[in-house]
Amino acid sequence: MKEEAKKTDETTPLPERSDAEILELVKQGKLPPYMLEKTLGDMERAVRIRRLLLESNLARDGFNMQPLPFEQFDYSSVFGRCCENVIGYVPIPVGVAGPMLLNGENVHLPMATTEGCLVASTHRGCKAISVSGGATAVVTTNGMTRGPCVRMKSAKEAAQLKAWLEEPENFAQVKSDFDSTSRFARLRDIKVAIAGRNAYIRFRSSTGDAMGMNMLSKGTEKALAFIQQAFPDMLIVSLSGNYCTDKKPSSMNWIEGRGKSVVCEAIIKGDVVESVLKTTVRAMVELNTQKNLIGSAMAGSIGGFNAHAANIVTAIFIATGQDPAQNVESSNCLTIMEPTDDGNDLYISCTMPSIEVGTVGGGTHLPAQSACLDLLHVKGASEENPGRNAEKLAEVVCAGVLAGELSLMAALAAGHLTRSHMQLNRAK
Amino acid sequence: MKEEAKKTDETTPLPERSDAEILELVKQGKLPPYMLEKTLGDMERAVRIRRLLLESNLARDGFNMQPLPFEQFDYSSVFGRCCENVIGYVPIPVGVAGPMLLNGENVHLPMATTEGCLVASTHRGCKAISVSGGATAVVTTNGMTRGPCVRMKSAKEAAQLKAWLEEPENFAQVKSDFDSTSRFARLRDIKVAIAGRNAYIRFRSSTGDAMGMNMLSKGTEKALAFIQQAFPDMLIVSLSGNYCTDKKPSSMNWIEGRGKSVVCEAIIKGDVVESVLKTTVRAMVELNTQKNLIGSAMAGSIGGFNAHAANIVTAIFIATGQDPAQNVESSNCLTIMEPTDDGNDLYISCTMPSIEVGTVGGGTHLPAQSACLDLLHVKGASEENPGRNAEKLAEVVCAGVLAGELSLMAALAAGHLTRSHMQLNRAK
Amino acid sequence: MKEEAKKTDETTPLPERSDAEILELVKQGKLPPYMLEKTLGDMERAVRIRRLLLESNLARDGFNMQPLPFEQFDYSSVFGRCCENVIGYVPIPVGVAGPMLLNGENVHLPMATTEGCLVASTHRGCKAISVSGGATAVVTTNGMTRGPCVRMKSAKEAAQLKAWLEEPENFAQVKSDFDSTSRFARLRDIKVAIAGRNAYIRFRSSTGDAMGMNMLSKGTEKALAFIQQAFPDMLIVSLSGNYCTDKKPSSMNWIEGRGKSVVCEAIIKGDVVESVLKTTVRAMVELNTQKNLIGSAMAGSIGGFNAHAANIVTAIFIATGQDPAQNVESSNCLTIMEPTDDGNDLYISCTMPSIEVGTVGGGTHLPAQSACLDLLHVKGASEENPGRNAEKLAEVVCAGVLAGELSLMAALAAGHLTRSHMQLNRAK
Amino acid sequence: MKEEAKKTDETTPLPERSDAEILELVKQGKLPPYMLEKTLGDMERAVRIRRLLLESNLARDGFNMQPLPFEQFDYSSVFGRCCENVIGYVPIPVGVAGPMLLNGENVHLPMATTEGCLVASTHRGCKAISVSGGATAVVTTNGMTRGPCVRMKSAKEAAQLKAWLEEPENFAQVKSDFDSTSRFARLRDIKVAIAGRNAYIRFRSSTGDAMGMNMLSKGTEKALAFIQQAFPDMLIVSLSGNYCTDKKPSSMNWIEGRGKSVVCEAIIKGDVVESVLKTTVRAMVELNTQKNLIGSAMAGSIGGFNAHAANIVTAIFIATGQDPAQNVESSNCLTIMEPTDDGNDLYISCTMPSIEVGTVGGGTHLPAQSACLDLLHVKGASEENPGRNAEKLAEVVCAGVLAGELSLMAALAAGHLTRSHMQLNRAK
Repeated sequence: MKEEAKKTDETTPLPERSDAEILELVKQGKLPPYMLEKTLGDMERAVRIRRLLLESNLARDGFNMQPLPFEQFDYSSVFGRCCENVIGYVPIPVGVAGPMLLNGENVHLPMATTEGCLVASTHRGCKAISVSGGATAVVTTNGMTRGPCVRMKSAKEAAQLKAWLEEPENFAQVKSDFDSTSRFARLRDIKVAIAGRNAYIRFRSSTGDAMGMNMLSKGTEKALAFIQQAFPDMLIVSLSGNYCTDKKPSSMNWIEGRGKSVVCEAIIKGDVVESVLKTTVRAMVELNTQKNLIGSAMAGSIGGFNAHAANIVTAIFIATGQDPAQNVESSNCLTIMEPTDDGNDLYISCTMPSIEVGTVGGGTHLPAQSACLDLLHVKGASEENPGRNAEKLAEVVCAGVLAGELSLMAALAAGHLTRSHMQLNRAK
Repeated sequence: MKEEAKKTDETTPLPERSDAEILELVKQGKLPPYMLEKTLGDMERAVRIRRLLLESNLARDGFNMQPLPFEQFDYSSVFGRCCENVIGYVPIPVGVAGPMLLNGENVHLPMATTEGCLVASTHRGCKAISVSGGATAVVTTNGMTRGPCVRMKSAKEAAQLKAWLEEPENFAQVKSDFDSTSRFARLRDIKVAIAGRNAYIRFRSSTGDAMGMNMLSKGTEKALAFIQQAFPDMLIVSLSGNYCTDKKPSSMNWIEGRGKSVVCEAIIKGDVVESVLKTTVRAMVELNTQKNLIGSAMAGSIGGFNAHAANIVTAIFIATGQDPAQNVESSNCLTIMEPTDDGNDLYISCTMPSIEVGTVGGGTHLPAQSACLDLLHVKGASEENPGRNAEKLAEVVCAGVLAGELSLMAALAAGHLTRSHMQLNRAK
Repeated sequence: MKEEAKKTDETTPLPERSDAEILELVKQGKLPPYMLEKTLGDMERAVRIRRLLLESNLARDGFNMQPLPFEQFDYSSVFGRCCENVIGYVPIPVGVAGPMLLNGENVHLPMATTEGCLVASTHRGCKAISVSGGATAVVTTNGMTRGPCVRMKSAKEAAQLKAWLEEPENFAQVKSDFDSTSRFARLRDIKVAIAGRNAYIRFRSSTGDAMGMNMLSKGTEKALAFIQQAFPDMLIVSLSGNYCTDKKPSSMNWIEGRGKSVVCEAIIKGDVVESVLKTTVRAMVELNTQKNLIGSAMAGSIGGFNAHAANIVTAIFIATGQDPAQNVESSNCLTIMEPTDDGNDLYISCTMPSIEVGTVGGGTHLPAQSACLDLLHVKGASEENPGRNAEKLAEVVCAGVLAGELSLMAALAAGHLTRSHMQLNRAK
Repeated sequence: MKEEAKKTDETTPLPERSDAEILELVKQGKLPPYMLEKTLGDMERAVRIRRLLLESNLARDGFNMQPLPFEQFDYSSVFGRCCENVIGYVPIPVGVAGPMLLNGENVHLPMATTEGCLVASTHRGCKAISVSGGATAVVTTNGMTRGPCVRMKSAKEAAQLKAWLEEPENFAQVKSDFDSTSRFARLRDIKVAIAGRNAYIRFRSSTGDAMGMNMLSKGTEKALAFIQQAFPDMLIVSLSGNYCTDKKPSSMNWIEGRGKSVVCEAIIKGDVVESVLKTTVRAMVELNTQKNLIGSAMAGSIGGFNAHAANIVTAIFIATGQDPAQNVESSNCLTIMEPTDDGNDLYISCTMPSIEVGTVGGGTHLPAQSACLDLLHVKGASEENPGRNAEKLAEVVCAGVLAGELSLMAALAAGHLTRSHMQLNRAK
């Protein structure tokens, strides 16, 4: 970053001035930091100057931004789309678990994480599944939602609005407007709740291979405009009334689903439980009941009936360019374990009603994230079967969770509980 | 990656053989993939070969791992600590929001995200706060938890165990054992719930500047061993009985807190609400009630009384090496808005009972993440005041959320609702 | 109860023997206590002997059943329908609150309670409503539910079952069978959730003027039999899988509704707030936010966003022969208060999604309870408009709750809070 | 009620005038209805005239109050204590279930209900328990709560208040004031939650044999007055901030307990399961998992992990003069079933953290209700061991629930599920 000898003057175009001069302009408030990219026409340089600015602002002994990498990064995929005021990037290491046999295919799970053992543990779960014959995953419901809040003059009128929306012919018209906003949006149903004179209207729509929040917002806005023609007194309080519910714990998503509702199951052979997972079928089943069912019930959980679904969800989400803030609801999961085949084998299922994923949009187009989607063979939009890539990704997430549950539960059972059950078995 | 001309043989030490040869060994099952780092003594090379293996396994037309970067990365900070079976890394762009005036200091928030507008929006919130005089944040409770499940012969005995643990002298002994496991662990209290003959015991301890899960596990294990001497019939079902509760939605964390419980508040001047946030105090207050209080109540939320806390939590977590899977409970937040000063200004507070953060451990030592902590002046352990860095980070997270709430709520209010309130105001 | 002088012998018909002799037979196990009514053909006598038996069994000094009344009671309406092993009855005092102007009619609320002040307080609320112009209540959804649990061989098959039930033609057939079981049952929709290989199927049906649980059970049983023909492998685990959800707290009822979903609203004039309720509009609104919205949110409540809905629900339920155990969900309520008319008046609404009531069946036919229904003009089935009586009763319950909320909230606000707001008002 | 021939005049004392004359005065607004008792000095007559008034007000063809009984009732125990504007009473039939062997004693359960089969079903459960050797119940925590909401100038000050209350010496002073308000109140702990600048303070105290709400209110009021001396800026928003939480669903009571926390357990012999309950151990255990654990989890329940606890709670509550509105939280229950003794017998437990009962106060002094308490040998205050009667009543409620769970679950299992398990057993 060596400085030019020759000083520039006021007439010199900004891109041709030195970093120090640009920095000075920013400090003097003559150039807003967020304009650096546009003004300089060189994104990496903009980032570099922003870092200088930060170092200068902080002016703390020994502080420098150097360990935060910023070079050799494709800022064009980020600028104006994914991040603002960029100062570099954090690299999250990606490990791979598997292959796992899922729906008859071998799947390698890319996991971006800094939690030690997570990849290795999931890998062990994949192995237990695969050698037992594989897992099966199914999407049982599919639809992204938006739940605006509108307000009427009275509760009575709010009730009329609800009744109106529930009339098939009105729904058809609302749907027609909603669907017109996107090639992929297909309004599936509307759920209306009244709270005093407020109405909370939850629109649910399929969204092709996109996670779909933007698509829903667009469609909902159009639909609300249409509804307002019939109810001119209706005040739109907010396009999101927290009735969606996005990135917040809620019974709504647990009960109604959001994004993809997926269930995945596998039968783990008894000898695999012992050789790979180092425990017994009985210990696993007992632990699942005491921890994932009763323990979570005691803790007052809605949707958290699992050991660590969020770990796997988050790792795959970060690797594949999903929105990791959505793991709040995407990691809702009920894990069931049962003895099967006369107690010799272990039946396990993971039920996840609200996995919010897409293979287009968000961070999915970034090169590294895109490569991870490619690894799963779900990169971009599915051409032959629109929406299928996103569904498949949701199935992979659920299957990954199942592998993670198997392995962590086995590790937890492997101590005292397994010894105790071993003694029981031996006693017989 | 140029290949040696001369072929090696069986006696050639593995590190000296070609990539192709190593790959072959792995494929033949003679070298397990997870041994590559140790065997080759060259971590980047191990990663490179693992990628070759993956490409070879997938053998799909057009697939290659190339867009997933892997070079120029400090694998020594990752290997054996943060990730296994590494195949590269995903770079997450980091933007900076602020500065925000928080507790009298200027704070720049590093946010790793691929969600467009998130940084810019938070930045706007920071500005509204700063020009209004700044925000104040306080940690009100501090303690990480572990909630094992143990099992007695009968509910009656489980009740005796509970009574025993609640005796001060017994607690003192348990604490002594617990505290002996770490320089920083200080057991604060124990909460016991009975469910039939199970007991769920929630240990809560301060953990210095570490997030503290490992510290808790270690202390809990020691404590349980001690308790077992008094109750030899006690079976330890699981070191975690989901009564902690880690990475799952739960009322427990909402009501009891976990990690740091933080509250942050600010008063936003009415003119700032209008000039910076482009809305009115009344519109903000009304929207907050209809969306964050009533809307979330209608959606059956426990702890999700906010607009998008998870967005900010996750972005700061990823930037600073926290565990993003913990945003499930770390983003629990109740946002309150009230008119103040006779309705002219806006009082806003965010109450977050379970922010789980540390400035040592986890991914905090990775260079980029460490730089982001340094940006916040909370890198590593606080020497003068152990634990203070982690507390400060929690305060920053909560303040960042407050900035994010301000800005998104203003954006949502800025349409119909603001127009409607403007009309109301004008009418007067 | 005078004893016969002449001793009876073995050939004497049982009804002709003395109480002492009958008691002896029961003690010897020759006559089961539950057979007393049938054997003696005199229900009051059966009760009397059962009391003697109890006194004899307890044989405790000073104990006698005398204070529990049992005479002059119409046992024929109870025997075989409402209660077994009867030993008398407890009289619950009934007070009357109102009249309240509701939907244009004057309504007197019968309340059976032993909680002092409850009737008087509700009465005050009724007065505040009536002098302000009355309350409006609307039923927004109507349908009782039953949620059996069935089990398939695999999650995949459970998903197929769900898809099958969601096909309109299959639903039509299920509905046809369901509806055939009662003149009033009309299946409205089916909601299916998968949990592993379990499916939970929530049937919702209108039920005329009956609360409808029995009607639902009958219809559901028939429907399941039909479904089983299509899915012979389906195991019916339980006619109720707690997915209904009956008499237990659940998000399900809060979000989906059960029985009648009702909303009631009123505008209380500012001067009435001050003269009748002894507080101010501002104090009421602030208290409602801090207590009913934020306080309940802090306590982790689903559906309990009110001050004391359960009090009024229970008192009217007992008076009118409803099932008071159903107040668990019937008292779900969100109370909203807002300033209106430029802050001069108080808008209040109560939203209650799961009021489970009927005017036929249960205890509604008992003379006293029937009189209380008659007081409300909703006795028995509505002939001109089947189902309307039960709906009207639900509206009355909701309106009664609104009156109760007004009054208790005013009492709570009337101390410190009102004084503080009075000072504020004066300061201006 | 024959009318006097001689007309009275204005000077005639009111008690000496005819019913018709008194009625006329009330209609003219000269005598408020609530004054009838005091004015006439004859409570039954007051009730009679109130009924005439109601009939006259309604003036509906065919309506009369006659079927609602009102004569031969001890109004002196009701007037000014239990009910206002009394017009009569509803008799609720009381059946008796049991005896059940509980903690070594035979207990007969009085149940006031109009739900057919409930008593008979509970009776069957009692029998299964008793012939298997009885049930054991233990109170694990005991304390009634009140959770006021107070408000500070800022969140920071609210945090200071919390810290102040958590200092042992301050707690001791608060406790001293609290305890001074009653002979039985003994403050056990204080739990403070911050929400913005609000603080919610949950006081927990033992309350002798009273349910204790009034005692708590009195103590809390005194304690708040004391706290206010240290924090003069503190505004008491409400003596109840819904953080108690009384008569509303909440995670708070489920997690923290309220009133008595009780656990009850029994082992039912395998042959008893088959002969008395007509099903198998395996069918019971499987049903409990699918319905009470997984089904309730799917329905998003906090604390409703049981089949029908509310039924038994409500019936015993009404019989014994408890507040049936409190069954909302008193019926919180987790039912666990496990095979024991190598799968031959059934272990069952019911865990109920918030049973709110008393043997003094409320409706417990009414003659009939008092007789039902006497039947349980818990009438009035325990002299030798204050508080023990209320605890024992809580144990009885929990044991009654256990009996009810056994019987209903057996009935549900007895159809398809039992047949299926029978086949399985036979197959072996």
